[in-house]
Amino acid sequence: MFPRYKARIGDALRLRLPGDGYGAYHLLRYSMGWADAEGNAIVATEGKALRPTLCLFACEAAGGTLERAMPAAVSLELVHNFSLIHDDVQDRDETRHHRPTVWATWGDAKALVAGNVMNLVADASLAELVQKSVSFEDANRVAGLLTQAYLEMIEGQYLDLSYEGRSDVGMRAYLGMISKKTGALFRCALNVGALLGGADPSTVKAFDECGRHLGFAFQIRDDVLGIWGDGVATGKPVGADVRRKKNSLPIVYAMAKARGTDASLLKTVYSSETIDDEAVDSVLQTMDRLEVKEYTEDLVAEHCDATLSTLDDVKLSPEDRKDIEELCHFLSVRQH
Amino acid sequence: MFPRYKARIGDALRLRLPGDGYGAYHLLRYSMGWADAEGNAIVATEGKALRPTLCLFACEAAGGTLERAMPAAVSLELVHNFSLIHDDVQDRDETRHHRPTVWATWGDAKALVAGNVMNLVADASLAELVQKSVSFEDANRVAGLLTQAYLEMIEGQYLDLSYEGRSDVGMRAYLGMISKKTGALFRCALNVGALLGGADPSTVKAFDECGRHLGFAFQIRDDVLGIWGDGVATGKPVGADVRRKKNSLPIVYAMAKARGTDASLLKTVYSSETIDDEAVDSVLQTMDRLEVKEYTEDLVAEHCDATLSTLDDVKLSPEDRKDIEELCHFLSVRQH
Repeated sequence: MFPRYKARIGDALRLRLPGDGYGAYHLLRYSMGWADAEGNAIVATEGKALRPTLCLFACEAAGGTLERAMPAAVSLELVHNFSLIHDDVQDRDETRHHRPTVWATWGDAKALVAGNVMNLVADASLAELVQKSVSFEDANRVAGLLTQAYLEMIEGQYLDLSYEGRSDVGMRAYLGMISKKTGALFRCALNVGALLGGADPSTVKAFDECGRHLGFAFQIRDDVLGIWGDGVATGKPVGADVRRKKNSLPIVYAMAKARGTDASLLKTVYSSETIDDEAVDSVLQTMDRLEVKEYTEDLVAEHCDATLSTLDDVKLSPEDRKDIEELCHFLSVRQH
Repeated sequence: MFPRYKARIGDALRLRLPGDGYGAYHLLRYSMGWADAEGNAIVATEGKALRPTLCLFACEAAGGTLERAMPAAVSLELVHNFSLIHDDVQDRDETRHHRPTVWATWGDAKALVAGNVMNLVADASLAELVQKSVSFEDANRVAGLLTQAYLEMIEGQYLDLSYEGRSDVGMRAYLGMISKKTGALFRCALNVGALLGGADPSTVKAFDECGRHLGFAFQIRDDVLGIWGDGVATGKPVGADVRRKKNSLPIVYAMAKARGTDASLLKTVYSSETIDDEAVDSVLQTMDRLEVKEYTEDLVAEHCDATLSTLDDVKLSPEDRKDIEELCHFLSVRQH
């Protein structure tokens, strides 16, 4: 699925973020992996463009031409990248994809404003929908759906922040949070794509449900990699999210499942100011005893299965079916 | 003009930012001046709601009912407030309207995300346009105009940041920057209001031009208050913007006009690490010699005159004409 749309998406994104004399767009081009800090073009180290790929895929799978969905696809990718720029400021992360982050290079103030520019360029992209033979009514509907999804994503990010430092979050609340933070854009990518492709309401709903499971599979796999990921691929040491006391799914599950000494160990470690190597090891050992990795990997596999079965009643070409199966496989084994 | 719309705008804004259980909206209600940090309702210390007032005024003046423009008016005010939340983070300002700012109360990360929520609630408000008997085509057009204006505002903020620490900005570049940073929302408030009120293209254009001059008058008056404002009303000491080495219009003008010892004094002061009381005084004395205050106040008066003359060919009721005259008078003498 990725190679099918990669070049088209890349071209459309570049049109939205042209070079400029004074700088804001230069920071954005840097953050997209197209330019170095001095503004020189570099061999791209771009992201996967997962959300726009899903959007274009759903549009074509539903029988539409991909041009109709391109403004929405571009908007989704730009909003995702806006959220990464701001996330790095919030989390004080100094590198992403092995490169210094925007705030680490240009300071907080410029990173903040550059992120906001990216967010508004994403909105501005939607004005192009009506130029792609989409009716005013549909353009209006799509803009409304995307805006609601973006709002949900940000609300999820706020929830995520509000869970920090708590040891009583619980699985239900955590899953609700990632359904907003990550799921909203996956759902919207697929349902808006299907809608613009001309799908009937039940097909749009099936794609929406498909996106719901994909979002869970993607985020939970992300959480697994945050703890047990291969350092070379992720750029982070094993146990990275434990050291940051991040409330990711493995931790939330471990805290909910642990009893007795396991429970008090987790609570003690997570309530202490900083976590040393020994504490990280003891948390990892506790998770081993509680079979947390197995549980979370099973959860990813379940959502991948569900992703496929939601599309059972949707007429897909054999190629499209194969593409979505490969995507699910990729999501469940990806190392970064 | 303000009392005419104040209650209606307040009600519409409150509907968009309801109380919630987990917090993000609570920060927004605090920032709007409706609640204290614990979430208790307080006697409102709201802003002037200038932009939505202008939008509703233009809609009614053009012959429309104000309901049609309310979603756009709400969006404008929310976007303005989103930018204030982020501005305070960037400028490290700890108080606004004599209250601790959002970041000073809840930290940078939550302030950043809460600002983003506000921005997206502003976008979501536009979905209501079509419920107010606005056609899909006009709703689309209005959303496009607002998005472009918001983008221009943020681009102006980025320009403002990029001018920091420079002594060679020049009047032309500075006026171009404030035309984006402040002017974009004033222009859009009036032209979108007129458009939704049913005005013909030449009237919409006149309102747009009116907003252009109002934006200049407002921002230049703001710059004057940043240096010579009454400390009790503004909450800042005389010379505040000099101490912060802010590139506001009086400074940019002084730097462009100064020759010989005046020029070297300004350059020396603005290139030093920190500015003490004595340095602030010497800059203020230099500005006195260069008659900077007179020049900037004349500029405000010119733009107020131009604001009125742009509407000479627009049919306005005597009440509407009186309202806009009073607004211009208010803008040129306001103390905070």
